[in-house]
Amino acid sequence: MLDADFALFNVDQLVTVAPGCHPAARGDLGVIERGALAARDGTIVWVGPMEEFDRNVALAADALVVNTHGRTVLPGFVDPHTHLIFAGDRSGDFYARALGARYAEQLGSGGLMQTVDATRAASDDELLDLAYLRAETFLRYGTTTIEAKTGYGLTEADELRGLRVLTRLQHLSPLKIIPAFLGAHVVPAEFHGDARAYIEAVVSWLPAVRDHARFVDAWFDEGAFDVEDGRRVLSAARELGFELTAHANELGPHGGARAAAELQARSVDHVVYLDDADIEALRRNGTVAVLLPGTTFFLNHDTYAPARRLLDAGVRVALGTDFNPGTSYTQNMQFILTLAVLKLGMTPEEAIRAATVDAAAAVDLEDRVGSLAPGKSCNLAVFRLNHYRHIPYHYAMNTVETVVAGGQLVVDNGQIITQPLVTA
Amino acid sequence: MLDADFALFNVDQLVTVAPGCHPAARGDLGVIERGALAARDGTIVWVGPMEEFDRNVALAADALVVNTHGRTVLPGFVDPHTHLIFAGDRSGDFYARALGARYAEQLGSGGLMQTVDATRAASDDELLDLAYLRAETFLRYGTTTIEAKTGYGLTEADELRGLRVLTRLQHLSPLKIIPAFLGAHVVPAEFHGDARAYIEAVVSWLPAVRDHARFVDAWFDEGAFDVEDGRRVLSAARELGFELTAHANELGPHGGARAAAELQARSVDHVVYLDDADIEALRRNGTVAVLLPGTTFFLNHDTYAPARRLLDAGVRVALGTDFNPGTSYTQNMQFILTLAVLKLGMTPEEAIRAATVDAAAAVDLEDRVGSLAPGKSCNLAVFRLNHYRHIPYHYAMNTVETVVAGGQLVVDNGQIITQPLVTA
Repeated sequence: MLDADFALFNVDQLVTVAPGCHPAARGDLGVIERGALAARDGTIVWVGPMEEFDRNVALAADALVVNTHGRTVLPGFVDPHTHLIFAGDRSGDFYARALGARYAEQLGSGGLMQTVDATRAASDDELLDLAYLRAETFLRYGTTTIEAKTGYGLTEADELRGLRVLTRLQHLSPLKIIPAFLGAHVVPAEFHGDARAYIEAVVSWLPAVRDHARFVDAWFDEGAFDVEDGRRVLSAARELGFELTAHANELGPHGGARAAAELQARSVDHVVYLDDADIEALRRNGTVAVLLPGTTFFLNHDTYAPARRLLDAGVRVALGTDFNPGTSYTQNMQFILTLAVLKLGMTPEEAIRAATVDAAAAVDLEDRVGSLAPGKSCNLAVFRLNHYRHIPYHYAMNTVETVVAGGQLVVDNGQIITQPLVTA
Repeated sequence: MLDADFALFNVDQLVTVAPGCHPAARGDLGVIERGALAARDGTIVWVGPMEEFDRNVALAADALVVNTHGRTVLPGFVDPHTHLIFAGDRSGDFYARALGARYAEQLGSGGLMQTVDATRAASDDELLDLAYLRAETFLRYGTTTIEAKTGYGLTEADELRGLRVLTRLQHLSPLKIIPAFLGAHVVPAEFHGDARAYIEAVVSWLPAVRDHARFVDAWFDEGAFDVEDGRRVLSAARELGFELTAHANELGPHGGARAAAELQARSVDHVVYLDDADIEALRRNGTVAVLLPGTTFFLNHDTYAPARRLLDAGVRVALGTDFNPGTSYTQNMQFILTLAVLKLGMTPEEAIRAATVDAAAAVDLEDRVGSLAPGKSCNLAVFRLNHYRHIPYHYAMNTVETVVAGGQLVVDNGQIITQPLVTA
C-alpha cells in the first residue's frame, strides 16, 4: 500500500500526458477514464482507474480528498514564455496598431521603452506586488509553472533587481517559476543604438546573473539583435554553464533560430519564419520550438508559425502565452490551445502535449512537471468539462475550477485559496 | 435626499454609458471619475461623483454597500444574440473545420441537426439544468441581460417547450432573458427540404408563441431561407404584433438584410456581406446591426462584418457572442470587445456602447438596461481594472470581479452568490 496525503477520485477523464504510466492510460495523452490519483508530500505516488484505488492507496487521516466527478483533469499548464516583471500601461500600443495613429495620439504609444521606463521607476515592492497578482491569475487559469523573463530593466542593477523580485516571488507564491535573464532584449537608449557595446555590457553581467537564473535569453530578429550579437551573448552564457533560449524569427526570416539551435539552445521561441534548414537545425539539436500564437493574434498578423511543418519534421513543439504588456496581454493557456487548433492546425492532443510535457521540456523540468505520473510534482488543473476536447472548443473562457500545486489546493471553485506556502 | 438600499462608492471609473446623466459624466461613455451610484428596489436612483454622494443619498440601515476602489464599473453587458437552449456535443464540428475530415471521422460531425436531435431527446429538466448553468456563466462574465433563441426544436411542441424552459429559467435566474422564437432556423428533416411547407407550419405556430415571446427571428441566407420565405414568416409575425429580428447575410450577399429592415425589424444580425443599399435600408428603418465577430473567428473565416461602413453611415451597431454549440462556443463579451477592436476597427468607446446601450436597443429594452442612470435597472459589472480601455486589451480573460443584477449581488469575487431570487 502507498501512503498518501492527497487524492483525486472519480475523475471522468484523467489526462496524464504520460502514456506509459498505467496499462489503463490510453492514446497519446495517456487518458485514464474514471481515474484516480494519489500524492504524498507534493509528489504523485499513484495514478490508475478508480477500481484499483482502494487496494493500492492508504490515505492519511488528514488527507485532502477531492471528488472530480464529471470533470476532466490535466497536468497544470506549463507556460514556457512569459515576461512577468513589468510596470506601466501599454494599452495605447494595442489601440495604435488596431485603430491607427489618430486614435493613439490621445493615449500615448511608447513601445517597449515605455515599459522599461515604468519598470525602472517602480519600487521593488511595487514590482513584487504586480508580479504576485499576475501569479495568482496564472494559477486561476490552470497554469502551475511558468518561465519568467527579465528584460525591462536593461541596466545591470535593474536586471538583477528583476531577478531578485522573481526569487522573492517564488518564496511567496505556489506558482513554480523558472527565471530567465533577458538582458539582450533590445538596446536601451543609454547606448544610442550601439548594439555591440550593449551586448558586451550584458556579457559582463552574466557572472552576477548566475546566482538567480539558469536560463539566458536573447532576441535575434529583424529590428532586434543580429546573429553575431545574439551568438556572442549566448556563447558567453553557455561557457558559464547557463541553459540557453532565444526569441527568434518572429518578424521575418533570420539566421537567429538556426544560430541558437546550433548553440544547443533548449528552446527557440516565436519562430514564425523558418526555412527547411532552420527546421532541420532545430530537429538535429533537440531544440524545442516554443510557438506563441497569441502574439500573432494580438498583433493582428496573418502569418502564424509553421506548426505542422515542425511537427511533421519531428521537432518538439511547445505552446506559450508570451504574456507581456506590448504584444500579448493574456495569461490564458486555454485560449492558446484554441489558437493552436484554429490557426496552427494542431490536434487537441498535440496542443495539450505542447502546453504540458513539451513545454516542461522547453524549461528543462520534464522530470518534475507537465505530466501526472508517479514521481512527478502533484500539479494539476480540474476543468468543469467532461472531455479534454472541450477545452479549446470553449474559446476565450476559463473552464478551470480547481488547481492543485505541490499537492495543495491553491484554487477552489475559481478562487485563490490563502494557505500555508507550498514549496514542492 | 434619495433613499437607497444599494450603493457603490469609490469607483475609479464609473462608465455610465449615459452622457447626459450628470454634469461630471464625460465623453461618449459618460465616464464619472471617482464616482458613486445608489439604487432602491433594483432601480438606480442616483449617480455622480463621490463628493456629492453624502448630501444626495440616505442609505437604509441594511443597505448593501460595495467599495470599488481601483475598479472600473460598466453597465452589465447586454448580449443580444444567443442560442441558449440546446443539448448535446458539437465539438466535432469545430475540429472538422479546423483539422479536416480525417480527424473529424473519429468524432462525428453532425452539423446543426445533431443539436436538434439531442435537444429533442433531452427532458425539460435537462434543458433547464443546462440553461441554468449557462445563465450562471453569463453572469460570471459580466452579462446581465441576454436575448435567447429557440431553434433546435423545429416542431411546434419542441419549439414551445424551448420557450417554456426560458420562462421557467427566468423565474429561477437573476439573468434577464428576452426570449426569441426561431422556428425559421433551418428546414428539419421531416419536411424533406420543402422550405415553403415548413415556413407555413412555422406561421401556424405563431399564435401559440405569443404567450412566451415578443420576438420572432428568421435566418435569411445562402443555404438557409430565401427572401420570400423569410419575409412570409416575419410579415405574419408583424401582423400578430411581434417585434422582428433576423439572421441575415452571414455567409454571402443576400436580400435578407434589406427585406428584414424594410419590415422594420428591430435588428438584423451577422450582416457580414452588405452593399450600400442594404446599409441605407438599415439606417432608414432604424434597424440595429448586431455584429457577431466571435462567429467569424470561430469559423476561421477572414471576412468580418463592415462595422466602420455601418457606423460611418449612421447605423446603430451592437455586439453579441452568438453563443451556440456549432459556430461560437463562447459566453465572454469581453473577448467580443477585443475582436471588435482588432477585427472590426471599432474604438473601445464604440465597442462598449455596442455591448451595452446599443445592444439594449436591439432587444427593445433601452429604457431599462444598458446604461447606469436614474430610472434604469441596477445591473452592473465591476472589473479588476482601473480603466475601461483595459477590458479589450486583456484578451481572452475574464476581469469581472463582482456583478449586480436588480440591485442585488449575484457574483462576488468571481463566484456566483446563492441568494433570494432577483425579479427586477
